[in-house]
Amino acid sequence: MREIVSVLFDGFETLDLFGPVEIFGRLKNDFRLNLCSENGGIITSSQNVRIITEPFPVSARDSILFIPGGDGIVKLIKDKEYIKTISRLAKESEYVLTVCTGSILLASTGLLDGKKATSNKRLFMWALNESDSAKWIKKARWVKDGKFYTSSGISAGMDMTLGFISDIIGYDIAKKQSTEIEYIWNEDPSYDIFAGVYGLSD
Amino acid sequence: MREIVSVLFDGFETLDLFGPVEIFGRLKNDFRLNLCSENGGIITSSQNVRIITEPFPVSARDSILFIPGGDGIVKLIKDKEYIKTISRLAKESEYVLTVCTGSILLASTGLLDGKKATSNKRLFMWALNESDSAKWIKKARWVKDGKFYTSSGISAGMDMTLGFISDIIGYDIAKKQSTEIEYIWNEDPSYDIFAGVYGLSD
Repeated sequence: MREIVSVLFDGFETLDLFGPVEIFGRLKNDFRLNLCSENGGIITSSQNVRIITEPFPVSARDSILFIPGGDGIVKLIKDKEYIKTISRLAKESEYVLTVCTGSILLASTGLLDGKKATSNKRLFMWALNESDSAKWIKKARWVKDGKFYTSSGISAGMDMTLGFISDIIGYDIAKKQSTEIEYIWNEDPSYDIFAGVYGLSD
Repeated sequence: MREIVSVLFDGFETLDLFGPVEIFGRLKNDFRLNLCSENGGIITSSQNVRIITEPFPVSARDSILFIPGGDGIVKLIKDKEYIKTISRLAKESEYVLTVCTGSILLASTGLLDGKKATSNKRLFMWALNESDSAKWIKKARWVKDGKFYTSSGISAGMDMTLGFISDIIGYDIAKKQSTEIEYIWNEDPSYDIFAGVYGLSD
């Protein structure tokens, strides 16, 4: 049983979180979901969904840290104490998964320096501006580098989550889940039609 | 501005709701989201997400009624008073959209009698058993019949929602949204790879 610590904040993007939560949440024997925020309590998404969260755990050791993106990131990356907390949680975790602009929050800790990573394609310049030390991959549905998994925008988080499950538990389990939720899984992390839409090429 | 009244209950399936909420919620000039349940308050999804809801409105006139599926349906379709409430809300609404087994809750009101509809493919027998008066379509990503839109399982709700937006606001708006959320939209309601997976054919 692995604990997933989700980093939530006001202005997170709804599907960044709940696509992966759907998939992890169905695998009740393998994952325990912990929806967390800095102080716990009610957190509101960019689409006005109000959810109840727990405070960050004292330690995220052996956990999977999950960071969605969203407008809320703009404010958080300027908050040094907050970034210090995210850095601690990310260092303690066995794996760190980010969706969309969640990779920008992670990059602001410096932990992606020298690592391959990706982010939202429409807002890719933001990622490039935030960190020139991460090796940003423009054309990728998701990217794995060591313990860090980063995905493209919003919906891409589901493809990455299935890919992550395939890596650590097995392809058949991931494929079965994608079929049960009737999701047409893009299994190839290098297949990304949206890079071209937004004029990005490596 | 159209009001979307979402029918939530303990044991709703997370992505059934939040895929469509992501899409409707980004179109803030066109839709206002109202996450509702019978008595309001905290509602818990099948994947243990706790969200805050408002009580059902006094009237759903001119609204879009949105019904997700989930395990919680099993209990609700036996509750005559609850079904009477859903029936009233559905009759008042301008459109009714259901995802996955949400179509079974709607069918239990009798409002799908004689109408074409679809549902979750893995659990399709449940739909057939619940109503022999609806014209269940086995192979379809989603089905429109008059004011009723019903989709296949879980992820199919996103394709239907984009199709619905295309119908009532315009294709370009729907396409732009699918690109912004980096979602590979299955635009053809008759294209359904999961019917075959579960041995269903018309």
